[in-house]
Amino acid sequence: MEAGPPGSSRPTELGPCLSGQRGADQAASASLQSAARAQLGRHPLAVAAVLPAGGCGERMGVPTPKQFCPILERPLISYTLQALERVFWIKDIVVVVTGENMEVMKSIIQKYQHKRISLVEAGVTRHRSIFNGLKALAEDQLNCKLSKPEIVIIHDAVRPFVEEDILLKVVTAAKEHGAAGAIRPLVSTVISPSADGCLDHSLERARHRASEMPQAFLFDVIYEAYQQCSDYDLEFGTECLQLALKYCCTKAKLVEGSPDLWKVTYKRDLYAAESIVKERISQEVCVITDTKEDNKHVSHLLEEVLKSELNHVKVTSEALCHAGRDLQQIILDQCYNFVCVNVMTSDLQETQKLLSILEESHLSILYPVVVVSDEQKLQESLRQGAIIIASLIKERNSGLVGQLLIA
Amino acid sequence: MEAGPPGSSRPTELGPCLSGQRGADQAASASLQSAARAQLGRHPLAVAAVLPAGGCGERMGVPTPKQFCPILERPLISYTLQALERVFWIKDIVVVVTGENMEVMKSIIQKYQHKRISLVEAGVTRHRSIFNGLKALAEDQLNCKLSKPEIVIIHDAVRPFVEEDILLKVVTAAKEHGAAGAIRPLVSTVISPSADGCLDHSLERARHRASEMPQAFLFDVIYEAYQQCSDYDLEFGTECLQLALKYCCTKAKLVEGSPDLWKVTYKRDLYAAESIVKERISQEVCVITDTKEDNKHVSHLLEEVLKSELNHVKVTSEALCHAGRDLQQIILDQCYNFVCVNVMTSDLQETQKLLSILEESHLSILYPVVVVSDEQKLQESLRQGAIIIASLIKERNSGLVGQLLIA
Repeated sequence: MEAGPPGSSRPTELGPCLSGQRGADQAASASLQSAARAQLGRHPLAVAAVLPAGGCGERMGVPTPKQFCPILERPLISYTLQALERVFWIKDIVVVVTGENMEVMKSIIQKYQHKRISLVEAGVTRHRSIFNGLKALAEDQLNCKLSKPEIVIIHDAVRPFVEEDILLKVVTAAKEHGAAGAIRPLVSTVISPSADGCLDHSLERARHRASEMPQAFLFDVIYEAYQQCSDYDLEFGTECLQLALKYCCTKAKLVEGSPDLWKVTYKRDLYAAESIVKERISQEVCVITDTKEDNKHVSHLLEEVLKSELNHVKVTSEALCHAGRDLQQIILDQCYNFVCVNVMTSDLQETQKLLSILEESHLSILYPVVVVSDEQKLQESLRQGAIIIASLIKERNSGLVGQLLIA
Repeated sequence: MEAGPPGSSRPTELGPCLSGQRGADQAASASLQSAARAQLGRHPLAVAAVLPAGGCGERMGVPTPKQFCPILERPLISYTLQALERVFWIKDIVVVVTGENMEVMKSIIQKYQHKRISLVEAGVTRHRSIFNGLKALAEDQLNCKLSKPEIVIIHDAVRPFVEEDILLKVVTAAKEHGAAGAIRPLVSTVISPSADGCLDHSLERARHRASEMPQAFLFDVIYEAYQQCSDYDLEFGTECLQLALKYCCTKAKLVEGSPDLWKVTYKRDLYAAESIVKERISQEVCVITDTKEDNKHVSHLLEEVLKSELNHVKVTSEALCHAGRDLQQIILDQCYNFVCVNVMTSDLQETQKLLSILEESHLSILYPVVVVSDEQKLQESLRQGAIIIASLIKERNSGLVGQLLIA
């Protein structure tokens, strides 16, 4: 069993991308998407998104701004962009970055082939950056591709796991109420300190919520609010919903969000994000076998054991000789795990061909797994083999590329 | 190179334990500890801790209460207990658990050899549980070991990374002010919803803080507060500092805590905790070599490369023939990573002896790493070898036990 072909080079530089909700959520997501299509079909809305990404991430304790920190070699912001791009009814995505990060951002867009993105230069505070993003949409100057939307979504570059359902909910609520935002229950009690650093009072936790992202607004409401708002608000404010309330008397609708909306803030959040990405891309495995019937049987047994090792795993089976034909579709579906079952007498040229196809796909298949095994032996030690394969898929440990592992 | 001896069984069931701050922090921690000793020597304080652990963890989305969820095979609460036990001036630790988890808790205490622990049955809410813990300290009924402390620390079972410095700070402040608690800046803006689910107002983020744990109190203050407080407070309250203020007019001192104090609440927090544990226990590596001079040179080169692969790693070198003698001390220092460098002609019995010592230590050495290599070859491919060793140490992948890996 080998992690990668013998003597293969390190994984391609492209990091993985996530294809969103999986398993049980997938059916719900599909029906949701058609509901979204139907709804946005009946009331065709021009929707754009503004993504402030000008922060310097001083809370992270690392020199790289957190939105550019790599998760499995791919910058965090690229996952967030991908999450927004998946939503077909978001027409434009305006990313607001500092001048010094403009080139970094351009290279990310090019490398990961992001679409519908416009770049705008950040201001010195979050509110000024968002305002710059809105101006670009309103004034149609910087970029002739952009046109003024009816609804604008504001989201954070460092909340990569946003799903279409919550985006749809805030957009629908904003259409009705003028403004809407995702909220979450408070994890800690919030207190107010006195000037001498002592407790003045604590807030009743049940009566308060954490304001999260995404938020959505009728464009004219939030743009008017930013045009009216004071320098103090632009410097020290943190809440767009509050601006809509204060300057446009628009009471935002609050929408309960999922825990996945959390903001990557500290180093531990990067660890958590990496584990979530690994978990998600482990959930689809393509098992490729010789065409022989016996071998197919082994592959079927392997599938069964893999399913017990990797939760919610979806296994696709392919015959090696058809791999070239069908693999394109599997790659389009963004599968990151390929297990190839051979017998000792197999023609390894077929396997080499398969590896070439995978390498040329320019997908982030970090470490394709190749099983080289005597059929009888595999059957005997199937459980151990599956544990090793599952480990390789889950951990994606680049130090093991090229190793021969024995089940 | 092998991850574990050939044919070795799965790792011992004991999970790892953390020996606290590392690297640059270690010196600071040492001087802090002597300050603590000096301070608590001058003013000998009887300090106890109450650890409410009666929650059911419904936010985690898993059936196991979060305090019992395993992190590298060891329950989360065991890390927290270990963090408190490390602090010699905490005399008693009262853990409050539900009746149904009492036996689980007892077995954890036995398995991980926790000391100074008393168990008390939880109430139906957090405040009732804490009150039960305080009663056990005050009334000296349940357990004759316990006596009423001057200061009581209240901490959460699900904040495993608490350090001695913050414990000392809250205890010192509680001695002076009657009550004290750790706080952190807010990550999200806090809002207040109106009855119809819309924004009523948002709170200025800079004027509020998240109230975290640990907290500390003069025992008489917090016990009086709990005795006085209303059923409504016991049912719906979330903040001990507020009880001290409301019922004893004691204004708690607020102490800025580190990001490590965060509460493990969601599944992503378990992922983050696991990564932090892995990172911490990867920072000490013991390299054991044959006594030959050349081999020592290889070991030295290996050290250099390991240091570049694992941040802040501290490498201890031992000669194989002395391993038995010195290993006890290294094990006492809680090192979790042993790399043994052999030449092909080595007497593998020595290595087997080493492995036996490690296995008998009952430490959680998840997967000792054994290097079997021709000396020349290792020198040639040192970098690749170190990458593999670093991978094994960082990932601690149980699926790879017994594998022969080639550098």
